[in-house]
Amino acid sequence: MRTIRMTVAYDGTDFAGFQAQKGQRTVQETLEGAVCQITGAATRVAGAGRTDAGVHARGQVISFRTTSPLGPLALRRATNAVLPPDVVVVDAADAPADFHARFSARARSYRYTIWNAPERAVADRRFVYHWRSYLDDEAMDRTAQGLVGRHDFAAFSGSLRGRERPTTTIRTVFRLQCWRDRHKVLIDAIADAFLPRMVRNIVGSLLSAGMRQVSADEVAAILAGRDRRLAGATAPARGLCLTGVWYD
Amino acid sequence: MRTIRMTVAYDGTDFAGFQAQKGQRTVQETLEGAVCQITGAATRVAGAGRTDAGVHARGQVISFRTTSPLGPLALRRATNAVLPPDVVVVDAADAPADFHARFSARARSYRYTIWNAPERAVADRRFVYHWRSYLDDEAMDRTAQGLVGRHDFAAFSGSLRGRERPTTTIRTVFRLQCWRDRHKVLIDAIADAFLPRMVRNIVGSLLSAGMRQVSADEVAAILAGRDRRLAGATAPARGLCLTGVWYD
Repeated sequence: MRTIRMTVAYDGTDFAGFQAQKGQRTVQETLEGAVCQITGAATRVAGAGRTDAGVHARGQVISFRTTSPLGPLALRRATNAVLPPDVVVVDAADAPADFHARFSARARSYRYTIWNAPERAVADRRFVYHWRSYLDDEAMDRTAQGLVGRHDFAAFSGSLRGRERPTTTIRTVFRLQCWRDRHKVLIDAIADAFLPRMVRNIVGSLLSAGMRQVSADEVAAILAGRDRRLAGATAPARGLCLTGVWYD
Repeated sequence: MRTIRMTVAYDGTDFAGFQAQKGQRTVQETLEGAVCQITGAATRVAGAGRTDAGVHARGQVISFRTTSPLGPLALRRATNAVLPPDVVVVDAADAPADFHARFSARARSYRYTIWNAPERAVADRRFVYHWRSYLDDEAMDRTAQGLVGRHDFAAFSGSLRGRERPTTTIRTVFRLQCWRDRHKVLIDAIADAFLPRMVRNIVGSLLSAGMRQVSADEVAAILAGRDRRLAGATAPARGLCLTGVWYD
């Protein structure tokens, strides 16, 4: 029995999220179907980040166990040959027997992309959130710095209906940066782990800061207050992308 | 009667090209429909570049005449409100009465994007041509330099069935550059005008150069020979984008 680790990219638009759900097209089930077709055995695939419906990935990491004799390169090529156009295996490697994409992960990074222009984007339309009014990206970055560090992020956690409730809402944000690249405002977040919808809820508050509706101090107070009802709206899934996962 | 100039972007994937054709979904007919809906009058729209089926644009320029009292900003907003998600008006302005998007244009620029990686692209999949083998982008750029200048480009002109035959196949290429950006190999072309399929035929020969199947001197000889049968294959439409148009 070997353990395989793969880096996976997907366009989340037409998936009901990563995690398998009955009667829905999910990334996990699509990958499991492809792996089963290649290795000849039904296999559970674990993912580092259980991305929501509509969220994209370019550095998702998955792991699974198999008795297949195929080498990593052959596995990668064969899996890609049967996967649909909106998901691809970028890399495959043998991993230590106890490697688990989710439980072994030490950090995850996400990028949120806002298309900040008077008219909508065309080429990037599946991967950005369109915001017409000019955003003060410097105010957004100042506000973001107040969220960096080890905190109780309950104020930025989504409701958890039907999902495993995290044992704690304390997380460590290593980095949270917001900057402008012409018509795009980008938010990069790296943390040990994220609560459900945490990035999208943080982006919602940063958007309020970018519109100068709240100050950096007010957002810091919302974090300290741990009350979800005080934070901004949840930004849409389409702008979010899981960019990478770190292991020891 | 006013003359309006608009800069337009589109995802060419689901269009049968720019030019109106009976029973086909084209960019021209889509824009004319939107302008008619906003101004209340059927209007012929002229485009600077008659892009082929599947070719994209982010800097296409169109012009049309109208008696509408709406200002450029209102026209832009109203037109975008009725256009489908794969085409957008980026900019609108009043133009001199004799301005014509095609006949007034002095130069056009196109970009061709090759996704040069072992596995296919996911996010950019509608906008790149996937080429697995590693390309020698420096050899491609050296070869490209032999095509810059005023030449008879008959060897790189597509067949012209059903299209207006250009009176001459002489064109001036102001700039032709090829370079690598990580997994992408990009080719930027600027010329006074392009023959049908000229960029895609040049890219076909540059791909042969990138595979070291032809030398820069051989491609220069193909240009001088003016025989289409000697040039490389036509690169697919999906990698091509009309990036800009210049006027006096």
